[in-house]
Amino acid sequence: MTNHKLSTDPYKGVRDFYPEDMAIQRYLFDVWSATAEAFGFERYDASILEPAELYKSKGAENEEIINEQAYTFTDRGDREVILRPEMTPTVARMVAGKRRELQFPARWYSIPNLFRYERPQRGRLREHWQLNCDIFGGEPFAADLEILTLAAHLFRTFGATEDTFEIRVNSRALLEDQITPQLRDEAQLPEYLRLLDRKAKLSDEEFREREATLLKDGAQVQVVADAYINELLHGLRALGVTNAVFEPTITRGFDYYTGVVFEVFDISGQNPRALMGGGRYDNLTGLFGGEPVSGVGFGLGDVTMRDFLETHELLPTTLKATGPHVMVIPMSASEHLYAEQVAHQIRQAGFSVATDIGNKKVGEKISRASEKGTKFICVIGEDEATSNVLTLKRLASGEEQRGELAALVNFLAVE
Amino acid sequence: MTNHKLSTDPYKGVRDFYPEDMAIQRYLFDVWSATAEAFGFERYDASILEPAELYKSKGAENEEIINEQAYTFTDRGDREVILRPEMTPTVARMVAGKRRELQFPARWYSIPNLFRYERPQRGRLREHWQLNCDIFGGEPFAADLEILTLAAHLFRTFGATEDTFEIRVNSRALLEDQITPQLRDEAQLPEYLRLLDRKAKLSDEEFREREATLLKDGAQVQVVADAYINELLHGLRALGVTNAVFEPTITRGFDYYTGVVFEVFDISGQNPRALMGGGRYDNLTGLFGGEPVSGVGFGLGDVTMRDFLETHELLPTTLKATGPHVMVIPMSASEHLYAEQVAHQIRQAGFSVATDIGNKKVGEKISRASEKGTKFICVIGEDEATSNVLTLKRLASGEEQRGELAALVNFLAVE
Repeated sequence: MTNHKLSTDPYKGVRDFYPEDMAIQRYLFDVWSATAEAFGFERYDASILEPAELYKSKGAENEEIINEQAYTFTDRGDREVILRPEMTPTVARMVAGKRRELQFPARWYSIPNLFRYERPQRGRLREHWQLNCDIFGGEPFAADLEILTLAAHLFRTFGATEDTFEIRVNSRALLEDQITPQLRDEAQLPEYLRLLDRKAKLSDEEFREREATLLKDGAQVQVVADAYINELLHGLRALGVTNAVFEPTITRGFDYYTGVVFEVFDISGQNPRALMGGGRYDNLTGLFGGEPVSGVGFGLGDVTMRDFLETHELLPTTLKATGPHVMVIPMSASEHLYAEQVAHQIRQAGFSVATDIGNKKVGEKISRASEKGTKFICVIGEDEATSNVLTLKRLASGEEQRGELAALVNFLAVE
Repeated sequence: MTNHKLSTDPYKGVRDFYPEDMAIQRYLFDVWSATAEAFGFERYDASILEPAELYKSKGAENEEIINEQAYTFTDRGDREVILRPEMTPTVARMVAGKRRELQFPARWYSIPNLFRYERPQRGRLREHWQLNCDIFGGEPFAADLEILTLAAHLFRTFGATEDTFEIRVNSRALLEDQITPQLRDEAQLPEYLRLLDRKAKLSDEEFREREATLLKDGAQVQVVADAYINELLHGLRALGVTNAVFEPTITRGFDYYTGVVFEVFDISGQNPRALMGGGRYDNLTGLFGGEPVSGVGFGLGDVTMRDFLETHELLPTTLKATGPHVMVIPMSASEHLYAEQVAHQIRQAGFSVATDIGNKKVGEKISRASEKGTKFICVIGEDEATSNVLTLKRLASGEEQRGELAALVNFLAVE
């Protein structure tokens, strides 16, 4: 034991979830889960600990992640370990590991926590949660269509209207087809894509200047939707998704994308930003040997989602009501055991219930129960403790009913 | 890119949760959650990353955890970080941090993953999940009674009968009162408790020999239940918990326990072991300064729980059925878009549904849907794609109904 007073702060850049925050977090996760499952997605999970080599074979971009942005350490057995910064390598590893037993198409989702070593001054979090949805195998057009429909529904299910967000679709294959012939050097396609990705942040003049250094003399790039993209947008409309558009500047950062790429954008003007993104990758499991499995998927972060829902006032106001349905309130400590028995009976009848065994006065106990969203109170005094008769009070209306519990169950069922 | 073939194994000592394993894991977590919430517990969470100093102030026992069994590393900002090996220090930190705003009694639960660096040869896991329930504040007798009742219900809710497990209760206060006067040296109480804890593993003679070195000449220790323990066992019976007993050898390892300590034991003979444990601690938040908050709580691990449920055949056999309610099966790729539209309509009607966009034959697609627990199939051929008429087949009975979707919703509602 030391006399040093410990700090109650969490580790830098991570969050504590007190019950009221946790209620919001669970609401996000529950809606995500229910929506993914409505589309037939099955949930998987894995450890946050991964062998670091899983991130070392994907090329230069990942070296940056490993060296500058990831939590890595060496364990006591000299293994290099990483706290996963994204879920795609993990799910690719898992799919590759059971490639022969799995049935394709496999629709998988997970809600992992991910870690990045962000410098504190940027005010960004070092741990966040992310919904990851992927379809492995299956005919690509239908799978692309489905993943985009699911993306739209993840916002619709929370109550977002189609005028508040937009699905911006492009294709890596299309970009490659239309841009490569215009380049001085085909190997500079990734550089051109990075320039395209930043187009909105540059002036027209800046963009044209930089573009000219990459293109053949006199060449011009005019990226236009191809038949595949048009068919996809048509398909989306047939599935009720009317807010998807072709956007030639969407490229997505990750090297592993090979087909469709997309982002969901908040277009309401209050919070103009990308809310999520994803795309098709055809070679990801190839790193593990054997036949590659193709896939299409996306990631959607909890912080971004919560910001969007708060901006658009879509979070239910009842979420903070984390108290039980019924609070049993003993008048004094001598009624505690009887109060626990009453609570037990109410619980057996199917309601969540707690007993206020604190030392506040009855009036204060009632106010506190009400603040926590509790619907009914049941005060236990000497009279109740010596009879089988209870008094239940519905806090919203003040209405009371008195009797044996069996006769009060219907009263309890209506908030 | 390298040509090195990556392993598909997870990091040593941690588990991948493929959908079938995840379904079992979620079942455990859902029952845990529902049971804790029926008792009015509120869910909280925190990051797995904690400042290492949180574990450094609790004395010698924790130095062993830090130095030998914990994952610790130094971050890029020279902060020493620990992957939490248990949840109690975290929850104590959180409660201490909002001591003035929280309402007591506070009933809190969490289902954290915890990390221990176990040597691989022992075959133990390095990451496991644990249900943690604590009541902070409130009158101690009622809180102890409640936490023990909840412990019993965590097994009862899964269908365990009272003859398969037993709640073994003791008290640190009682042990101290009855043992200290018999000791040669009062400071040797912890050593005596460790000996008592190992009693079942020693022969009577070994125990007596070692005991003699700690006791005064001629002294004897006969630990008997005191009034508090008897009242607690009486209270538990009044709450329907008939399988709780006083067990003088239960001591629990952690130094922070100060009152009641308990373990739940599997007594069916097939798997005789402690399933969970907990106790009362009165000083834990004191490390953070300010008034200490007392608490009582326990931890219950996922591996132990699953072993218990498997031993007693209490896991529902339907858990592996992770497929959607309905599978729409297009005869060929030209029906994919229409099939997705049908799936969309079925989903809007409130059922989970997926479209089999793989390249298997229809017969095989039907078998696969059935294996995954899907209840209905809807085959889409050219006829269906050009009309509004669908054929739905209930896989369990083979019964078919044909018509427009609106007329088939009631058929779909009955499995």
